[in-house]
Amino acid sequence: MNHQYPSILLENAVNEFAKLPGIGRKTALRLVLHLLRQDKEMVDNFAQTIVKLRHDIHYCSCCHNICDKDICDICANPQRDRSMICVVESIQEVMAIERTGQFKGLYHVLGGIISPIDGIGPSDLEIASLEERVKNDGVQEVILALSATMEGDTTNFYIYRKLQPYAANVSIIARGVSIGDEIEYADEITLGRSILNRTPFNESYKLISK
Amino acid sequence: MNHQYPSILLENAVNEFAKLPGIGRKTALRLVLHLLRQDKEMVDNFAQTIVKLRHDIHYCSCCHNICDKDICDICANPQRDRSMICVVESIQEVMAIERTGQFKGLYHVLGGIISPIDGIGPSDLEIASLEERVKNDGVQEVILALSATMEGDTTNFYIYRKLQPYAANVSIIARGVSIGDEIEYADEITLGRSILNRTPFNESYKLISK
Repeated sequence: MNHQYPSILLENAVNEFAKLPGIGRKTALRLVLHLLRQDKEMVDNFAQTIVKLRHDIHYCSCCHNICDKDICDICANPQRDRSMICVVESIQEVMAIERTGQFKGLYHVLGGIISPIDGIGPSDLEIASLEERVKNDGVQEVILALSATMEGDTTNFYIYRKLQPYAANVSIIARGVSIGDEIEYADEITLGRSILNRTPFNESYKLISK
Repeated sequence: MNHQYPSILLENAVNEFAKLPGIGRKTALRLVLHLLRQDKEMVDNFAQTIVKLRHDIHYCSCCHNICDKDICDICANPQRDRSMICVVESIQEVMAIERTGQFKGLYHVLGGIISPIDGIGPSDLEIASLEERVKNDGVQEVILALSATMEGDTTNFYIYRKLQPYAANVSIIARGVSIGDEIEYADEITLGRSILNRTPFNESYKLISK
């Protein structure tokens, strides 16, 4: 099977690309042949950028988001509301919430969610450091913005229990029918929760006015 | 738009991955975050493998396929029939034909096909070197195995005319109804050609016996 490649160098490069998530051997070959057609400088630059990223990246000592310094731009920004912390799984959720423009507080990046099946327990996540922040930094509200899955719910409950001794309120982002969805086709668990967690009418549109 | 990334290093790495064909910015971010979670050694190895490939790769001086030496394993193999040359667009087609096990001759890799819309003319391809091989190496048959597209047909005609002065026969791989296809659903151009280019019954199964 493996001697199908006419070159060991090519095969090694295909193997490396095929280790990436969602990249099969056929796609890997296509990417490698694309790189072979580029200038040497471009390929060197590609490789250097990745190595530099892995060696020089920082994680914010406050919120644990990826950044270039000891403290990320959000935590260092004096305009942000330091009394609110939004707890997320990873950097992608920070980016997604920042794009909404609806949150002006700080974040806390857990680095994953509790998932016994993947061997990820509370001690693998930044939960102790969240507790420290809530204890010492005058936090008034912690908003849990984890995935609406069983793992997300487990992590929500775990954090909720850990934060019980402190004065901060713990809230969770609204779960309900997506905007644009037709009620007829919404799944029944979502629809049921959206009825239980209904919002007073005069409050429900206040956040959409950007 | 671009200041959405919390780190310049991260943004640079995403930009590099997003230059690859078929990789959008969202996939690029996913790949970069995957690399961030790996050991430094693994990431260094990934980068080195790509750089080494680009700097040390050879192209066979005979058939122009990718290889690790001056002459590729196929051209160097004394068992191969040197009187037949199969003309293909790129290394992927060499690999595909080798997997069939039906061809024991040599290859000639053009490095592309004539495509005026992409600015690729005959002089950008290994056509002159094909002519040299046919002229000097006692080649008896040249099999054209290019894509069944307009660009493939243009390239086929160009090569056919170029090889007219020489004794070698020029043939083209059969085009017809794919094995497993139902006649009812075959497109009419393919079906029409498969009737025009019909094969004597006792010849048609001879190659399938591996």
